[in-house]
Amino acid sequence: MEVEVVLVNPVYEGNVGAVARVMKNFGYSKLRLIRPCELGAEARAMASHAQNVLESAQCVDIDDVFGRSNLVVGTTGVIGSRRSIRGPYPLEMLGIKLRATRGVASILFGAEDQGLSNDVLRQCDMVIHIGTSSVYPVMNLSHAVAVVLHSINNATTTDTHERAVASHSELDGLLKHSREVLEAVDFPSHKRSRVLANLRRIYGRSELSSAEVRTLRGILRRIELRCRR
Amino acid sequence: MEVEVVLVNPVYEGNVGAVARVMKNFGYSKLRLIRPCELGAEARAMASHAQNVLESAQCVDIDDVFGRSNLVVGTTGVIGSRRSIRGPYPLEMLGIKLRATRGVASILFGAEDQGLSNDVLRQCDMVIHIGTSSVYPVMNLSHAVAVVLHSINNATTTDTHERAVASHSELDGLLKHSREVLEAVDFPSHKRSRVLANLRRIYGRSELSSAEVRTLRGILRRIELRCRR
Repeated sequence: MEVEVVLVNPVYEGNVGAVARVMKNFGYSKLRLIRPCELGAEARAMASHAQNVLESAQCVDIDDVFGRSNLVVGTTGVIGSRRSIRGPYPLEMLGIKLRATRGVASILFGAEDQGLSNDVLRQCDMVIHIGTSSVYPVMNLSHAVAVVLHSINNATTTDTHERAVASHSELDGLLKHSREVLEAVDFPSHKRSRVLANLRRIYGRSELSSAEVRTLRGILRRIELRCRR
Repeated sequence: MEVEVVLVNPVYEGNVGAVARVMKNFGYSKLRLIRPCELGAEARAMASHAQNVLESAQCVDIDDVFGRSNLVVGTTGVIGSRRSIRGPYPLEMLGIKLRATRGVASILFGAEDQGLSNDVLRQCDMVIHIGTSSVYPVMNLSHAVAVVLHSINNATTTDTHERAVASHSELDGLLKHSREVLEAVDFPSHKRSRVLANLRRIYGRSELSSAEVRTLRGILRRIELRCRR
């Protein structure tokens, strides 16, 4: 889905600039503003290298958003007694949902002081909630956008985080090699099997890549060479 | 683990205040500052209802952080050619790891303009990376903190037993010992620093216990003994 960020009645121009910046950080560019404060030098300063996002922001009407979008997502930090936000959608699942569907998704963020009105929240297709401390749940507007966009962006690009780990047989080879070195350095034989069991656990937890297994075996080879001399 | 946020050379007081706010939003309170800018009205304004976090922030030394913490986590937005940040740890896994282990975890965030130095990153037990757009990867400092803390706070509680991990200085001792062994076995000197950087990452990912560090050092000692013969 094509994601657009909609700020409803933002009060501080610095926040609008900061939102533009974090949008660009996560590869989003469509910013929509509903009755925003005036945007001047402070907004531009906070936008930093995202001037293009700030400049291309469009002022729209809330009905326009509901009329044009395929999915309107409301956000709220406060939860509980408000009837309109019962059954919030888990933030971690939103990204997966957006990836699996097509069209325009508008994510609405309310004003700094009040959030989205109950009336707007009621009209949203879904409401997401950022799990904050009950002691102080009110987030800075741009922080809330940062967390939501990171979460969405992260779900859509999970493959970049995948680390190729070495195969079991590569780890096995590393462990055999380790045993040979223990022998080569006369490691006390009654302690060897315990130490090898320990090494297997450590190797297993380390999420070693194939290259790292090769590096470790390079060290082992060097130790053997030196011992033979 | 007890999580503390360490800002290294923050330049803008507003960012420090914004960090204090988002820390409180997610239930964290231990803020450490290394050579910060002066903190005044702007920091207090951005901290909003998190004045207590801002006021109790302690100025510390980087060596103090490395000496006292069990796990030092570096953060960086830039990745790729920098040798010191090979093998970044997935952000989504950090929270789970922190819940499953005990001790103090210090999460380091660099200055707004430069991030953490390669020298500091090299010393970190692990490095995490927020997946940003390559077009504009540089996040606002408090946005980066927001994303990382949300991710940690959001991690599903695993009911597995807590593992006590070795302290940073224990890992440091292991790494120094490893360097001595590489020298003792005539490991090619031009490859040593690369291999040591690699070992640091592997040790960091392995969640080694103090006992395991002792076991590994026992092996290293045995290798040294054998080489001297």
